[in-house]
Amino acid sequence: MYDRLKGFRDFYPDEMSARRQVFDAVEDAAARYGFREIGTPTLERTQMYVDKSGEEIVDELYAFEDKGGREVSMTPELTPTVARMVVAKQQALSKPIKWVSSRPFWRFEQVQQGRFREFYQTNVDIFGSSEPEADAEILAFAADALTSLGLTADDFEFRVSHRDILGGLLDSFDADVDSREAIRAVDKRAKVEDEEYLGLLSDAGLSYDQARRFDDLIVGGDLDEISEFGGDDVTDAVENLRAVLSAAEDFGAREYCDLSLTTARGLDYYTGVVFECFDSTGDVSRAAFGGGRYDDLIEEFGGQPTPAVGVALGDATLQLLCQRAGVWPEEELQTDYYVLSVGDTRSVASRVARDLRERGNVVESDVADRSFGAQMNYADSINAETVVIVGEQDLANGEVTVKDMESGDQTTAPVEEFPGDADRPTYDDFAE
Amino acid sequence: MYDRLKGFRDFYPDEMSARRQVFDAVEDAAARYGFREIGTPTLERTQMYVDKSGEEIVDELYAFEDKGGREVSMTPELTPTVARMVVAKQQALSKPIKWVSSRPFWRFEQVQQGRFREFYQTNVDIFGSSEPEADAEILAFAADALTSLGLTADDFEFRVSHRDILGGLLDSFDADVDSREAIRAVDKRAKVEDEEYLGLLSDAGLSYDQARRFDDLIVGGDLDEISEFGGDDVTDAVENLRAVLSAAEDFGAREYCDLSLTTARGLDYYTGVVFECFDSTGDVSRAAFGGGRYDDLIEEFGGQPTPAVGVALGDATLQLLCQRAGVWPEEELQTDYYVLSVGDTRSVASRVARDLRERGNVVESDVADRSFGAQMNYADSINAETVVIVGEQDLANGEVTVKDMESGDQTTAPVEEFPGDADRPTYDDFAE
Repeated sequence: MYDRLKGFRDFYPDEMSARRQVFDAVEDAAARYGFREIGTPTLERTQMYVDKSGEEIVDELYAFEDKGGREVSMTPELTPTVARMVVAKQQALSKPIKWVSSRPFWRFEQVQQGRFREFYQTNVDIFGSSEPEADAEILAFAADALTSLGLTADDFEFRVSHRDILGGLLDSFDADVDSREAIRAVDKRAKVEDEEYLGLLSDAGLSYDQARRFDDLIVGGDLDEISEFGGDDVTDAVENLRAVLSAAEDFGAREYCDLSLTTARGLDYYTGVVFECFDSTGDVSRAAFGGGRYDDLIEEFGGQPTPAVGVALGDATLQLLCQRAGVWPEEELQTDYYVLSVGDTRSVASRVARDLRERGNVVESDVADRSFGAQMNYADSINAETVVIVGEQDLANGEVTVKDMESGDQTTAPVEEFPGDADRPTYDDFAE
Repeated sequence: MYDRLKGFRDFYPDEMSARRQVFDAVEDAAARYGFREIGTPTLERTQMYVDKSGEEIVDELYAFEDKGGREVSMTPELTPTVARMVVAKQQALSKPIKWVSSRPFWRFEQVQQGRFREFYQTNVDIFGSSEPEADAEILAFAADALTSLGLTADDFEFRVSHRDILGGLLDSFDADVDSREAIRAVDKRAKVEDEEYLGLLSDAGLSYDQARRFDDLIVGGDLDEISEFGGDDVTDAVENLRAVLSAAEDFGAREYCDLSLTTARGLDYYTGVVFECFDSTGDVSRAAFGGGRYDDLIEEFGGQPTPAVGVALGDATLQLLCQRAGVWPEEELQTDYYVLSVGDTRSVASRVARDLRERGNVVESDVADRSFGAQMNYADSINAETVVIVGEQDLANGEVTVKDMESGDQTTAPVEEFPGDADRPTYDDFAE
């Protein structure tokens, strides 16, 4: 007996059907905005990730040398791959480029609740627009995806910020500040005691008073005050952030957005508006997912300067969010019909099953030569809604039996008229 | 600029939309038979493949040692994984177990037409029935999948055989025959000259006359004659093959099946009926896909004896088959609406776009602050069926313009009544 690898998951049909409903809802939302599906490879050259994230990333990768001597990695994220694809066909692609894809990714990391070594993401990106409407469309898509799952403004919030506000404010202090370190401190703000947090800011170069002032500004979130305090960078960032929120208002997503200047999300990589989705109740403490603008990546990958904004929804945290809100789909099989054949009736039963399938129904029938009782138990185990019993005696009378599995009621129907013209005939159509 | 790895493919939206239609059709066909989707890991322990296929398989695998010191491989096929999953939950799963999944697999092999290092398969399997109806249901599903793509009995055929017929016939000769070698010769029959083929059979231990007789029997395909010539194994195999074809008749798949006893498909692994799907015209010389019965695997994997039968449809050969028959879907984007906003009309244009999306339509709108002409060109590039123009002047009159992109005809509609109650209003709904 073989074991499954740690951090990898098998999904059996019950769980998979719930996951599929969720993936489909997210992908349908993307499709309605005109995001187009792409297909991407599972392996890329390791160098691509080293160039983007530094040599230390290799420790987290499933990286190896292939049989042709190439250093390759199982993709830990989609962004470098889509950047490569945009660069490869930059001239041919009409802008804006709007892409979506859902697939697994891999990171060799500590396995814990909501974190696996193999995880699934739906990535949605727009390339070729620096306008606030592009950022807002990403927010609007994400909001539509979540509301189509049954989540409401009571369940989730997008904490929205702009990467230049934190950095710009830090630059405005008369101090020699290590911005990266200070921003890392902000990232930890919610997780550590006040004193430790202020200590970290002080380590980064701010005096105690400066640290307090800085924290008051970002927590207060008064954009006018911030704009006034900061330099031109901050003023521009505030203006852009306001423009994105205004577009989000028109696009129907503003109600889900909270200004949150302490949202620091991987600032090395992002260049503009950033956001993270949180459980509004606070029960799920980690961000469910996040995204933002990354205008420099395509150029760094050797392409023409191309602004970009995107979001990636991960399967595990999205599941936690849905379960917390009580909207995770039922994990159970659904079956429209079981066609039960007893005695020498296979050809008629098969004809009935085929006709029902042609109408788009999910139909199972006996493939194991089993007794009436065993077939009935099986029909029950797959949650068949209706069982059509094709028995020798009934057939001699030109009839089949139609049984509603929930109520247990059954009636007969003329075999020649079953399923007839109805797409999905049930007990009610034949009961007197 | 980074390059894609050899044998791996990027799918841009045009091509991906065609592929998605094909995958969806195949998966829908499986769903209608009650095959349930499962999700499976990308990595498994290398030992699992070595045990099933021998040490030499490692040369074909993307195999490596992970950072935890485990010998792992990117899955080259699904069957060992599903066998592992069946064994892991054997008691809990109600039989028959009917599973489907579509995903990529990897083999490090020579890249050629229709063969890549990363390829996609839809695997469909039934565990827990040794009855001919199970084999026939696999054939019926495969036939439904292909006909739902627009293929007909003129385009494809299933060449059906039984693994015990070849081996059993060979055993019936008064000779010391190496069955594996002889069956390998049969596998090469279509590819080599007659003389070479008979030479290979002779190398395997048959005399010239025996080889001729053997070949006459399997090419002639007279099941009565074969049954009489062979021993009990052959008689049983012939009976089972006939029973499967009879069930296939009831299940509506018989017309696609040809008896073909020279079909030798990896006999080491299969235990009963085997089949391969071929292009009927012979233009695509390789089998598009194949499947069969493998009753011993679950037990070999440490489970209770559990009969099994399945099929795996690969993306590349399926595409060749569809393209040969002229039914490969158009590789182009489809868009229901482009909502064009000119001047200060974003809030109304956004409301219109949202309303159209809520009705399930694919709707794009401006996210790049572009001119009328640039937006119109973009709408054209995404094959928008209808463009809704929201302009300042029209709006002042309480109207929007509805333009049919194929004819170029346009008319106005009252903005308050657009889209109104219609799910998908077009030019025709408003033209006088």
